[in-house]
Order: sequence, then structure tokens, then C-alpha cells
Amino acid sequence: MRVAILGAAGMIGRKLAERIAATGLLGGKSVDAMTLVDLAIPQVAEGFAGTRDAFAADLSAPDVASRVVADRPDVIVHLAAIVSGEAEADMAKGYRVNLDGTRALLEAIAEVEGYCPRLIYASSLAVFGAPFPAKIPDDYYLTPLTSYGSQKAMGELLLNDYSRRGFIDGIGIRFPTICIRPGKPNKAASSFYSGILREPLNGQEAILPVGDDVRHWFASPRSAVEYINHAATLDTAAMGAQRCMTMPGVSATVGEQIEALRAVAGDAAVALICRVPDPAVLNIISGWPRDFDTARALSLGFRAESTFGEIIAVYLEDEMRQKP
Amino acid sequence: MRVAILGAAGMIGRKLAERIAATGLLGGKSVDAMTLVDLAIPQVAEGFAGTRDAFAADLSAPDVASRVVADRPDVIVHLAAIVSGEAEADMAKGYRVNLDGTRALLEAIAEVEGYCPRLIYASSLAVFGAPFPAKIPDDYYLTPLTSYGSQKAMGELLLNDYSRRGFIDGIGIRFPTICIRPGKPNKAASSFYSGILREPLNGQEAILPVGDDVRHWFASPRSAVEYINHAATLDTAAMGAQRCMTMPGVSATVGEQIEALRAVAGDAAVALICRVPDPAVLNIISGWPRDFDTARALSLGFRAESTFGEIIAVYLEDEMRQKP
Repeated sequence: MRVAILGAAGMIGRKLAERIAATGLLGGKSVDAMTLVDLAIPQVAEGFAGTRDAFAADLSAPDVASRVVADRPDVIVHLAAIVSGEAEADMAKGYRVNLDGTRALLEAIAEVEGYCPRLIYASSLAVFGAPFPAKIPDDYYLTPLTSYGSQKAMGELLLNDYSRRGFIDGIGIRFPTICIRPGKPNKAASSFYSGILREPLNGQEAILPVGDDVRHWFASPRSAVEYINHAATLDTAAMGAQRCMTMPGVSATVGEQIEALRAVAGDAAVALICRVPDPAVLNIISGWPRDFDTARALSLGFRAESTFGEIIAVYLEDEMRQKP
Repeated sequence: MRVAILGAAGMIGRKLAERIAATGLLGGKSVDAMTLVDLAIPQVAEGFAGTRDAFAADLSAPDVASRVVADRPDVIVHLAAIVSGEAEADMAKGYRVNLDGTRALLEAIAEVEGYCPRLIYASSLAVFGAPFPAKIPDDYYLTPLTSYGSQKAMGELLLNDYSRRGFIDGIGIRFPTICIRPGKPNKAASSFYSGILREPLNGQEAILPVGDDVRHWFASPRSAVEYINHAATLDTAAMGAQRCMTMPGVSATVGEQIEALRAVAGDAAVALICRVPDPAVLNIISGWPRDFDTARALSLGFRAESTFGEIIAVYLEDEMRQKP
């Protein structure tokens, strides 16, 4: 099986490529060729026995999409995107990469006769906007309140339409907020959700800008990769026309995150969390969803952690090399 | 006030231009300039006292959108679209005109500093797809099952996003099926809804391809023009981020249409309806919506007929010049 990963230099793309390299498999099938694409040239995961190609390119630029589909990958994982903050700050760039890039990929696929790859599309909780119910079901209407969310919702419509017409066999995955992200804090409003756990686990202070009662939707990086692994060979016959859905995750408050940290690392770790309320951050995340009904994804076999303790355990195992 | 009508050669565009020409008004405000654009050069409505410009152009072609916004119309009515059947038959053309054309217009507007026109966007019931509830509310999720419906749903997302960012003051109008359309039958699957009334009212036979129990959502051409008239100067402050909604209309079965015809034109007219069941037509329209909850549009002051008898009366008055 041939696999192409667009956005392969990002955290999920990199981990996915590493997993394929380590196991030789995606969705239980043997992978004999892997193409990795990102704006910066992606590192080729070590240990992969198959044919590898990696190049730096912008999917929305001419001929890049044709190059991606030139060797007809069986599975295309489309993670390439301008993230929320940048898409809001630079509207033209967001539409160009997130909408035009996705269309360029779909058009390049449609132009190849007799070709209908599995296309796994990274969508986002940002397709939903307040107000919403306590638990958001998959048939809740899409009311994005950012340009990024609008672009992702348009991508979902394209994925459904091109699937219906038989050009692709698409699956759209709305990722939970990934936690604990490895590495350093970033400028995303959501950065603290990982930071208040990651920094104390590494003996460092972390800033908590919101109150303990703030609730959000999470899964581990390992689950993020596993969604893609599962989607790669999932039978889509039962999915019908609606190809996009929210992935399973853990709904947890900041207070529950902190208690999960205390359970594994004690009071000393929790004491490293500095409460510095930031009304700007609170204002942004107050419009974010808190909980989801993911019955559809669960019925299709998608899985994630079921407690925040499990999410922390994944970080300890995968990033700090602690045995379970 | 300056008004631009894109798609001005279509039935609704033409009637809108005629109304503005006859009254000198749109939304109660005086119109002193009117720009009419369509693929074929639109007829300039007679009797208009203001400045007129009419030209043939494809909105998705380079520089056409800039020309439309060059004299900064206060209200832009965007009716230009490839219709459902053609967008399904020619996918590239549908995306080019319906999606790229709309984006080109929005981008041309965004490029003019300090300019924020009222943009009235013609959306469609085709943004909804089966299965749906008996009455579809405005917060029902969009599940288009055609490329046309997908393009219109993407246009709604664009309208919301560009409104949120302050480039336009947008209102998206989901038109009911317009009935009784004047003129000749066409190849649309919905053509018979007008034909079974229009032809008998003119002493001619009409084909009815479906059963009496088929239910659908209707309004008159006069209501279609009045939605736009109302939207032109409506205060959008209370609309929030969701700028698109289904317009009020009449939910009626074919049997109710026929009884309304009998009430005004008698058994002889009804006898001109020939029942020739067509499973292909039935199959297409069985996926169409039947009834809507339009509380939101009603609360914003949009109105339509409340019985099918009124819809027929509008045809008699406006197209057959019969006094009410």
C-alpha cells in the first residue's frame, strides 16, 4: 500500500510517519511506499523499509497536488493546514492553504481516471461555534466563528461531495484538543492545557490562565495517530453521505486535569502550577466546545482514552519513556 | 442608494429590477443607480429614472467582480448561479461559478477599504438533504446531497465569515421553490409544480409525474422579490453570526395545489392535468424537503403567502393581469 502524508512535519504527521516506519503497517495493511510533504521538508522516519519520498511544497501552489497523486497513493492523509490563529491573522493565507489547497488536492485526484483513494481529512472542533448544547452530537449544525473553522467546514462539504461523486473515499476526522503535546509551550490559546501537565511533570513551573471549572475535549497524540490508522482501512459502506465526525475523547475540567496530575506526580508537581488569570484567554476559550456525543465514531470503531489519567500515562510512556 | 443585481437576467433578477424601476425604491430607500449583470446582457427595466448600467459577464472571470464593486453599490443582490441540474452535470462549471464566483465577489469587496455593502445572497433549500425532520428548523445541520447544494452551503459559510470580519453586511436567503413560474416548462425536476397550475390556467394540458401526496415548500415570484426588498435595508444587528435562513413559504401537497386550482378555475381546468407517473422524477424529489420552521425569518419581518390559493392569485394578478 502507498501512503502520502500532507503536513508530515507537524506533530501528528511526524508521529504517524514514525509509527508506519516502525511497524511497516497502516490500518493493518503493509505499507511499501510513503510520501511525506510539508512546507518545510519533513524528516523521513527512521527504520522504514519501503520506498520513501519527502519534499517541501505548498499544496495550494500549482502542480504540487498533481505531484502528490502522481504515484497514486492508496491512502492520502491530509493534515496540511494553516492553524486557527494564523488563519485569523492572515485571512488570504488561510483561505489559500486551507480551502484552495484542499480543492487542489481533490481536483488533482479527480483528474486521474479510475483513481479513488482513501482520503483522510483533518477537520476540527472549530467547525462548531457557541452557543451549543452541553454535549454536541454529530448532527449538530456547523456554526464556525473563525475563518479557520469556516475553511474546515467547507473542506468537510468538499469531502462529502467528492466522496458522493466517487472521486475519493473520504473520511473527515474532527480531532479533539491533543494533550499532552510534547515540546515547548506555544502562543495558541489552548497551549496551557498541555503546559499545566507537561511542565510540572518535567519539574518546571506552568501558568494557568483560567479557572478550575473550564471544561474541554481531549485525546492523546497516540489516539490522534490511531484515529488515522483506523480510518485508513475502515469500511465506509455504512457511512452514507456524511463522511465527517467528531472523534472520541475525554471531557475534562482543568480541575480534573490537575487531580489527574496529582495522582501520578503528587502535590509537589501541582504546586508548580501558577494561577495567573488572563481574561483574554478565558474570553477565547469560553466559546469553545466542552463535550461531545461521539456515538457514531464509536460505532465505527474509533477509540480514545476514557480518563484523563490515561492521557497522562500516554505522555509518560511515549515522551518520558516510563514503562506503564 | 446604488444597487447591483448579479444574475439580473433570471426570473427573480428581472422582476426585482422591474420593481425597482417602477417604484424607484428598494427596501423603502430611493435607488438612484442600478447595475445589472448576467451571462447574457440583461434587459434594462423600463421606466427607471436613475443611472443604469448593464453588462454581460461571468462573475468568476478575472476583473468582473472588481467592475461590479467599482462604483461601490450600497446593496449587492447576488443571484448569479449555475442551477442544480447543470452543477451536477458539469461539476467544474458549478464550482467555478457558484463557489469561485462568490469568492471573487467577496474578495473584490474586501479589497476596497472602508467599504461594507449589504450583500444579499441567494441560497437554496438544497443545502439540506434527507433524512430530515417533518419541519426543518434553521439550526438543522446542512447535509447537501448535490454539488449545487454543497456550493450553496459553502457560500453560506463564506457569507457568515466575511460578515463576521466586517467586509460585508450579509444576509443569506434560502428561497422556497418559486411557484407559479411564468413562461414555459423547463427540464428541472421541479418544473411540474408550476406546470400543473400554469398550463391549465392557460387552457393547456399539463403532465403530473408524481402522486397527490407529495409535499413541498413554495412561495410566489412576488414573495421572492419581496424577500430581497425586505433584506435590502433590514437591521442585521440582531442576527448575530448566522446570516442565512430559510424564507417563509407554504407547505403544500400536490393534492392541495390541485384543489386550489379547482377553487379558482373549476373542474375543467383540473381535467387538463394528465397523470403520467415518472419514477425518475419521484426518485429525485423524494429527497427534497417538505416543510420548514421559519420562526427566525418571520421574527425578522420576512413574509410570504399563507395558502396555495394566494400563490395562484399572485399568478393571476401579476402574469394574467386579472384584478384581485
